[in-house]
Amino acid sequence: MLASGNLRRSRPPCIAVVGAAACGPEVARLAEAVGRALAEAGATVVTGGRGGVMEAACRGAHKLGGTTVGILPGADRQEANPYLTVALPTGLGIARNALVVRAADAVIAIAGGFGTLSEVAMALKEGIPVVGLRTWEATTPEGLSLPIHRASSSQEAVELALRLATSG
Amino acid sequence: MLASGNLRRSRPPCIAVVGAAACGPEVARLAEAVGRALAEAGATVVTGGRGGVMEAACRGAHKLGGTTVGILPGADRQEANPYLTVALPTGLGIARNALVVRAADAVIAIAGGFGTLSEVAMALKEGIPVVGLRTWEATTPEGLSLPIHRASSSQEAVELALRLATSG
Amino acid sequence: MLASGNLRRSRPPCIAVVGAAACGPEVARLAEAVGRALAEAGATVVTGGRGGVMEAACRGAHKLGGTTVGILPGADRQEANPYLTVALPTGLGIARNALVVRAADAVIAIAGGFGTLSEVAMALKEGIPVVGLRTWEATTPEGLSLPIHRASSSQEAVELALRLATSG
Amino acid sequence: MLASGNLRRSRPPCIAVVGAAACGPEVARLAEAVGRALAEAGATVVTGGRGGVMEAACRGAHKLGGTTVGILPGADRQEANPYLTVALPTGLGIARNALVVRAADAVIAIAGGFGTLSEVAMALKEGIPVVGLRTWEATTPEGLSLPIHRASSSQEAVELALRLATSG
Repeated sequence: MLASGNLRRSRPPCIAVVGAAACGPEVARLAEAVGRALAEAGATVVTGGRGGVMEAACRGAHKLGGTTVGILPGADRQEANPYLTVALPTGLGIARNALVVRAADAVIAIAGGFGTLSEVAMALKEGIPVVGLRTWEATTPEGLSLPIHRASSSQEAVELALRLATSG
Repeated sequence: MLASGNLRRSRPPCIAVVGAAACGPEVARLAEAVGRALAEAGATVVTGGRGGVMEAACRGAHKLGGTTVGILPGADRQEANPYLTVALPTGLGIARNALVVRAADAVIAIAGGFGTLSEVAMALKEGIPVVGLRTWEATTPEGLSLPIHRASSSQEAVELALRLATSG
Repeated sequence: MLASGNLRRSRPPCIAVVGAAACGPEVARLAEAVGRALAEAGATVVTGGRGGVMEAACRGAHKLGGTTVGILPGADRQEANPYLTVALPTGLGIARNALVVRAADAVIAIAGGFGTLSEVAMALKEGIPVVGLRTWEATTPEGLSLPIHRASSSQEAVELALRLATSG
Repeated sequence: MLASGNLRRSRPPCIAVVGAAACGPEVARLAEAVGRALAEAGATVVTGGRGGVMEAACRGAHKLGGTTVGILPGADRQEANPYLTVALPTGLGIARNALVVRAADAVIAIAGGFGTLSEVAMALKEGIPVVGLRTWEATTPEGLSLPIHRASSSQEAVELALRLATSG
């Protein structure tokens, strides 16, 4: 189907969607719309595999037949949300946050808690572009802002993430 | 499509195929046949994502449209073989061997080097069944044999692995 | 020497000092003073094992004969700063940030970059108290401040960290 | 005390002692003698931090005032044996086996179970020399023996390990 030399190139972009394991309905709608738009664009959705924002993003992608990967903190596949193409129980606890980020060509952060902030920070440390939707604000010790790309809608977030992923 | 309550159940089994990153043509044929049979059975093939046995198993599954996951030791997606549905650069080095094993419902070890032996040992430690094809022999300090299921063909290995995965 | 039943209790507190691998002289002086005060108090100093804030904190503790542990991102002991009692090359890359945090009863963050922010966030996620010295400010999506204890001197930071470590 | 340029060089060798978390009295005596001899030689003893062989080796070193490091699989310091200078709860589960090995200049394997076998295999994969005392035997798929240095006494094991560590 694909010429062997082009196979690497042709792998779809991986976009991580990070956010809290519990969230209100409005944030869930936003995350689901992000997942849907990513699947429509042919991207693979990578998440931490659990509930809340992660589950909503996977549900959105799953409904459109997209590929969804969950990198779970525990060693038990049962903690996975039901919308994962691939569930990877890592048993690494919070250290798995580094893997979610590393698996991604770009990260979309939606709202979120401390775990989300750690993922945003690690992505920036690793030079992986981050798009933020109603997420953390932060100021460095030198008074600079967190260098993430702010989006105001799910569509804008996905377009930004895909553009940043392929230009990287 | 699927009733929500059954979604978890209906996730296909994940079978890890472990072996060396370089191998001769005979072992490669064996690994490719294992990958093919796993895809035919609808299983997801998990590997370390690199060459040799890992690449051959992924190629076999990929040809039949199967899902293949590569859990890479490095932080660079470029080291992935070209037959992966999902390439996860972990940056964990050899510690990623634990993740390959944990992601699996059963492990098929084909020939292999020290890394393969570490994966077989960690699977046994974690209670994950291991099927061996021309792989390591080992004897505990107490004189007992490595408790893995020996298979003599790719077909037998896959049948054993799938049976052990679902009975686990 | 110690009664066996008390050995666990009597282990000294582990305080992680986190900050950037490169820093100016003023921040270095602050970090060295923190290391010195921790050693004086009998605490074990845990860091990421590299330069900048990590090295300065270790140097301060080392001068007073304190125990210093460096949890290195790479697999090579050579990247360790010269003031470590124990240098642990992990080969985990940025995922080692989770280990620095987990090894600690409390964390002191001094100035710092994205890696530092990820450590602060993971500590808060894990319920490990964080003391901040001229470090990141952040605001949650809900408009709340990062719940860390701000100190204005090395002495105050160490006193706070030790109090929080033992009350935890 | 030490000239700055020599500090790296002068760090004592780290020797990992690996073995099962439960063991009989004879193996425990062997492990304790290994720990004692390592401390006498000024080496740092690295273990997985738990009971059995790990605890016995740490007890031996601790009695002579040696430095002992425990790299724990869980996130809880309470699972540490009482003879550790430094207890590092990693929360990585079995993936911490890779860290025990990486922290070492040489590994001494005493008896042991599947976890021990995985550590021996990972050390060999990483090019870290392994000394075996009443431990696993294994044969590669090509019919070769596990390339570890067999010792017949604790004293011989420690001498071998220290020689291999410094020539590495």
